[in-house]
Amino acid sequence: MKDHHLDRPAGEPTGPSRRRLLGTAGAAGAAGLVLGAAGGALGASAAAERPPALATVGAGRRPFRGVHQPGIADPAQAHGHLVAFDLAAGAGRKEAAALLRRWSRAAEALMAGEEPPGRLHDTGIALDAGPSSLTVTFGMGRTFFDRTGLAARRPAALEPLPPFSSDALDPGRSDGDLWIQIGADDSLVAFHALRALQREAAGTARVRWQMSGFNRSPGATASPRTARNLMGQVDGTNNPRETDEDFEQRVFVPADGDPEWMAGGSYAVVRRIRMLLDDWEREPLAEQEKVIGRRKSDGAPLSGGTETTPVDLAKRTADGDLAVAADAHVRVSAPETNGGAAMLRRSFSYHDGFRDDGAPDAGLLFVAWQADPLRGFVPVQRKLDRGDALSRFIRHEASALFAVPGGAGEGEYVGQRLLEG
Amino acid sequence: MKDHHLDRPAGEPTGPSRRRLLGTAGAAGAAGLVLGAAGGALGASAAAERPPALATVGAGRRPFRGVHQPGIADPAQAHGHLVAFDLAAGAGRKEAAALLRRWSRAAEALMAGEEPPGRLHDTGIALDAGPSSLTVTFGMGRTFFDRTGLAARRPAALEPLPPFSSDALDPGRSDGDLWIQIGADDSLVAFHALRALQREAAGTARVRWQMSGFNRSPGATASPRTARNLMGQVDGTNNPRETDEDFEQRVFVPADGDPEWMAGGSYAVVRRIRMLLDDWEREPLAEQEKVIGRRKSDGAPLSGGTETTPVDLAKRTADGDLAVAADAHVRVSAPETNGGAAMLRRSFSYHDGFRDDGAPDAGLLFVAWQADPLRGFVPVQRKLDRGDALSRFIRHEASALFAVPGGAGEGEYVGQRLLEG
Repeated sequence: MKDHHLDRPAGEPTGPSRRRLLGTAGAAGAAGLVLGAAGGALGASAAAERPPALATVGAGRRPFRGVHQPGIADPAQAHGHLVAFDLAAGAGRKEAAALLRRWSRAAEALMAGEEPPGRLHDTGIALDAGPSSLTVTFGMGRTFFDRTGLAARRPAALEPLPPFSSDALDPGRSDGDLWIQIGADDSLVAFHALRALQREAAGTARVRWQMSGFNRSPGATASPRTARNLMGQVDGTNNPRETDEDFEQRVFVPADGDPEWMAGGSYAVVRRIRMLLDDWEREPLAEQEKVIGRRKSDGAPLSGGTETTPVDLAKRTADGDLAVAADAHVRVSAPETNGGAAMLRRSFSYHDGFRDDGAPDAGLLFVAWQADPLRGFVPVQRKLDRGDALSRFIRHEASALFAVPGGAGEGEYVGQRLLEG
Repeated sequence: MKDHHLDRPAGEPTGPSRRRLLGTAGAAGAAGLVLGAAGGALGASAAAERPPALATVGAGRRPFRGVHQPGIADPAQAHGHLVAFDLAAGAGRKEAAALLRRWSRAAEALMAGEEPPGRLHDTGIALDAGPSSLTVTFGMGRTFFDRTGLAARRPAALEPLPPFSSDALDPGRSDGDLWIQIGADDSLVAFHALRALQREAAGTARVRWQMSGFNRSPGATASPRTARNLMGQVDGTNNPRETDEDFEQRVFVPADGDPEWMAGGSYAVVRRIRMLLDDWEREPLAEQEKVIGRRKSDGAPLSGGTETTPVDLAKRTADGDLAVAADAHVRVSAPETNGGAAMLRRSFSYHDGFRDDGAPDAGLLFVAWQADPLRGFVPVQRKLDRGDALSRFIRHEASALFAVPGGAGEGEYVGQRLLEG
């Protein structure tokens, strides 16, 4: 066995590693990341039992610093927490800046698999586990700017979303001054991050709402590409891809964007969309497929081909009917029918048990990313609101819109350009 | 690429495979299971894009049939659902037998990665995924025997658990006529099974309560052995192991047990134990370790050694104090101090967001398995109830006890020996 030591870039936290692992990556095809630490940190007896290296899931590590925040263009993880905070009475710009500085320090350490630095001893919940592709993403809601005296610097794009006729929104689970999105491929790593960040907020901000969701475990399917929602439907096929020429332009605010402090940032639309699964599952398969406009088995459009074949909206069946019905979800949401509007959907399914009426409290924590909500979510949802066959089977129960600043540069914290600019 | 076909033992379901995968297992060290199906089931276009084989997580498969039910002696999975049902008004022995027959058929198919057979089209939620180590385990509560006219065959071991002074039980989330434990290493596979089994119950039984939990993802840690709970503590170290000489005797009812129909079965004690994490996390690390009697970092007992070193209850520090405090959890729960009582704990952590009082609604879905609750859970809990330092930081909020019959033999359904005996 050979010991590897992770080269630590300047600006990375140097706190004690929570995982004192020695060895080489075990699984073929693993990222090859091995967290190492000099001997002596372990008791002599424990050192005798050298644990093997982290496996693939634990070893996944995403960068905290960069032009963009993590948790946007990278793949959605198996576990997610969305949590909104309101600033405490008396907390203003100064306290918010200090909080975002603490949060950024903590996020950077957590994403590196380290204990978060700070006054409090670590909870230990993530001990032994690797970073597990943890990402932490911070955003600000419309109300943040009033509470911090920064209303003049509020982006125009943070205007409230228009009401939609199918909305049944719970204000207590909507909006919020601040927002954190946490994603990880291990549930304890995700919970650890949630607790650590919540503890850093104590005295400055309190939890307004919190939702947890999930996606496929890495390795559960043959193809990592395929994602399904709780309706059993392939989801996300038409998502913009990082390889698309206009991906950056659609998803991120440009370097010379407005306001300046949002350069490299994005806007997140968050909707809690409950699925009426009892109703949905009573529909015959053919009816479900007609509602969506895609085959359930493989996601291929009803106009033919495979999942990735472009939908042929003009195609007719031998009987002369439209192959993809006029009110099919895939037609109504298609960029071609929305002036090219597109957003990057990066959602989690949720399941919070059963409601008092016996129906499952389950659906989609829809998270959509775009450079401008008025050219992303809003025109698409306006269209869906009027004519989507899927509307009968879903309820939008909560809604929020957050400005997500660009990523932190070296020595910087997320939001610094706003709060100290 | 070579096509493998799974040899199908007699009695296995022969319904259409939900995953029509061709190829060889991709990851080194994978179980090597590949689900195959003859071509032609896919559309010609889809067949052209042969997906690669299932990766390790998806390929995990556990047997439904055997002396014992699955989900007891095998490792706890990353996702779990516990769900209790009450029989509907008018449903008696005959309806219960038909339900257990349907449930057994469905469980066997689901655990093989197949669509559940039956009247209803499949929801499709698990399409593309492998069995992902799914297990489905069925049990009966005390009330089941009255409702089905089988009171005379009710095991003595199903007497209600004694009350404990630290209990704060919610009757609506306790007990139940029937119980299902679902575990899988993929969240959609677990949800799919939950929905499928719930749909099979329609008209015969309704959900009484349902709880969901989680454990580490396979591959998140270097050692698969280490499990932590949401207090950050290594948990399960002293669990009986399958290699122990008395494992079978402790966990399972013997072949000549009483009642006869419980041969190969076990008793499950289920407790929803909320952790008062805000209080716990305020304690200094040394105080937490004193409460438990083990070091947080690696689970080693405070009497010295490593995680697996037996706890030395007599050991004293240089100051003459007990190394493991008189009220330390590990001392009070130790088999040595409980007349050898031991149970197999196979729990899931849970996290259902925040309570109205702002505290996290999180803790342990404690599931303990034993041949006799009066020689397993009851004496241990009685002792803990009186003198466990951990009691200050936990609340038992729900409780149930189920008789879990032996595994289904070929052609049999779970519970048949009771219902048709």
